[in-house]
Amino acid sequence: MESLGISGVKIATINCGIKYKNRDDLLLVVFDKIAAVSGVFTSSSIVAAPVAWCKKNIRSGKTKALVVNSGNANAFTGKEGEKSVSNIVKKTATELKCKENEILVCSTGVIGEPLKDKLITDSIPDLISKLASNERSFKQAAAAILTTDTKPKIATKESKIAAQSVKITGFVKGSGMIAPNMATLLGYIFTDANISASVLNSLLREVVASTFNSISVDSDQSTNDTILMFATKAASHELITKSSDPRLKTFRSDLFELCLALAKMIVTDGEGAKKLIEIEVKGAASKRDAKKIAFGIANSPLVKTAVAGADPNWGRIVMAVGKSCPYAVAEKLKVKIGGQLATKSGMKHPDFDEDALHKYLQGTEIKIEIDLALTSQWLKNSAKVYTCDLNEEYIEINKSYKT
Amino acid sequence: MESLGISGVKIATINCGIKYKNRDDLLLVVFDKIAAVSGVFTSSSIVAAPVAWCKKNIRSGKTKALVVNSGNANAFTGKEGEKSVSNIVKKTATELKCKENEILVCSTGVIGEPLKDKLITDSIPDLISKLASNERSFKQAAAAILTTDTKPKIATKESKIAAQSVKITGFVKGSGMIAPNMATLLGYIFTDANISASVLNSLLREVVASTFNSISVDSDQSTNDTILMFATKAASHELITKSSDPRLKTFRSDLFELCLALAKMIVTDGEGAKKLIEIEVKGAASKRDAKKIAFGIANSPLVKTAVAGADPNWGRIVMAVGKSCPYAVAEKLKVKIGGQLATKSGMKHPDFDEDALHKYLQGTEIKIEIDLALTSQWLKNSAKVYTCDLNEEYIEINKSYKT
Repeated sequence: MESLGISGVKIATINCGIKYKNRDDLLLVVFDKIAAVSGVFTSSSIVAAPVAWCKKNIRSGKTKALVVNSGNANAFTGKEGEKSVSNIVKKTATELKCKENEILVCSTGVIGEPLKDKLITDSIPDLISKLASNERSFKQAAAAILTTDTKPKIATKESKIAAQSVKITGFVKGSGMIAPNMATLLGYIFTDANISASVLNSLLREVVASTFNSISVDSDQSTNDTILMFATKAASHELITKSSDPRLKTFRSDLFELCLALAKMIVTDGEGAKKLIEIEVKGAASKRDAKKIAFGIANSPLVKTAVAGADPNWGRIVMAVGKSCPYAVAEKLKVKIGGQLATKSGMKHPDFDEDALHKYLQGTEIKIEIDLALTSQWLKNSAKVYTCDLNEEYIEINKSYKT
Repeated sequence: MESLGISGVKIATINCGIKYKNRDDLLLVVFDKIAAVSGVFTSSSIVAAPVAWCKKNIRSGKTKALVVNSGNANAFTGKEGEKSVSNIVKKTATELKCKENEILVCSTGVIGEPLKDKLITDSIPDLISKLASNERSFKQAAAAILTTDTKPKIATKESKIAAQSVKITGFVKGSGMIAPNMATLLGYIFTDANISASVLNSLLREVVASTFNSISVDSDQSTNDTILMFATKAASHELITKSSDPRLKTFRSDLFELCLALAKMIVTDGEGAKKLIEIEVKGAASKRDAKKIAFGIANSPLVKTAVAGADPNWGRIVMAVGKSCPYAVAEKLKVKIGGQLATKSGMKHPDFDEDALHKYLQGTEIKIEIDLALTSQWLKNSAKVYTCDLNEEYIEINKSYKT
């Protein structure tokens, strides 16, 4: 891995004792100068107190610091939850001598339990004294935000804007409660690119649609989903103020690749997951439709368990297409698994090799391609989503999360 | 159980060797006289060959016989599958000396494998010679249509129309691939009531909406879902030709109770299920919305696993409301589990007793009530759905269904 540090970003983590022992559970990120920021949040109608705070205060596009805790989501905690956010914001702003609306706060963990915010506010001075901008601090940050994840998820990329080097580093968490509309996760992307908050906003929304919003572990969606992207503007190139600027070409595709890599890390670390499943749907009536059908397959417990058991039960994919797509035509439908065409003329392909499929499904990267094949016009209406298999371990993890 | 037999209905079952050994897998039902019939089918765009046949031929409202096999769904089997249905229909009509369009056919089992219809057609004469109308034959019928079900599901009820005794007996199968729109199942309801096919049709649709279409095991929906209801008209009361006829009052509610009992049997026999979960949502913008939100909770793997583990993680129910209802207001939301109110003013209720909830969740019948509490006008917009917990056994069963 290339060096993770981003010029202008300082980080510290600590164990403040919210839930976990023997690991850090609190993260502070401080920007040397006010950074440009943009965010994408859960579409749930019931959002956690910190999400409500971020949604409101991110509008300025400016931020000085970010506080994230794991172990408690501060969701469905009423006025008390709002007060907790306010206490954290006040303390951090005072210590950093900045405005309250320049502080962003995120929480992840159990829903409906009051957050012991004093544990957090008491730790802010310690965190500030530990701030650093090195490889180690980024790695510690990626670890401190985890809940049921089995490993930290972090990636970095060297990119270019107007022939000048820029860098992007991101870390995310998420393992269960991961679904289409804003995968249930926290994600933080940092860059030193010199781009305006509105450009940042356009790029983030564009990229999230086909990365973090194209993954599913269990179809459930949390009250706390948040992706934030920050630009410190420390890079030496000229300020970019339009998202259509051609000088963003490389940066845009590098950002997409970085986010896709992080999104795939979430899926492969899905609760109990052993396999990454990529599902591509072509030939739908619209791109939105293609995504809906792809998620219909991705969220089918029967498809996911078949993949888990390497059971060559391709009929379940046909079932999932049928239930998710009101206009599928059996005779035209093409289902390919690992490159092998399973269907022809509304039935099993005559050359279909069940043993070969069984063998293929024993692998850890499974590719399912659906072509509705209705008209050539529909070729462009495709979507790719990512999910994981559904294993006994998912159940084990979730049967006793709280107890 | 009261006697199951329905006047005018004869039944026989046999093992014809499609998939299972040591159990019957083929059912023939023959009506002494042409019976009135109505059906409700899967809403999937990819339907099995027998479903296509039934949908077309049920329009007349008349039927002489029904053939059902388990072990193979004859779904996604193309022209060959249609030919199989045709062979079964031809043979049965010839043997019974009736019209082909008076024969209905259903199949359940694996998708995408050719049906060895010769095994079925060869067995028709044997079946006809075994036809009987007794307790035992109905029980055998309920057993012959099973796939992953662990037990037969059959119920009967004495009812009344115009002060005359009538009877209703039904049996169903279904365990996995059970979802909202036409729970994935086969179901057959028989009555001797003297009612027209159009009345039968109205009653069936009305009742199915709040019974078989209000249950979910795993959110997956099959290519073969079929509920058929038959009236032999053998009862002595006057013919009923309008569904609004007040003389249907008792019959209507008895039919509802019977179907609800059968629907609950499916859920409690859901793959791996140990518990029945009833979810009631009140105060939604419409009845349809209430059902959508109720199913959002019913299909949440995190809610279902929490119930499985008796984990008092009520926050997951709040999460599921948030993801399924775009207009929920946290401060007004009332979540009750087993009669205990878990929420107040957008947070955990001050009197909430986690230990009591943990104890309650160890039971086998779990009741979850959601009141969105937005306006009193919305009180009538409620829906009740039924699901089961999600256990390791569901995964075990489905990892290796085909292999």
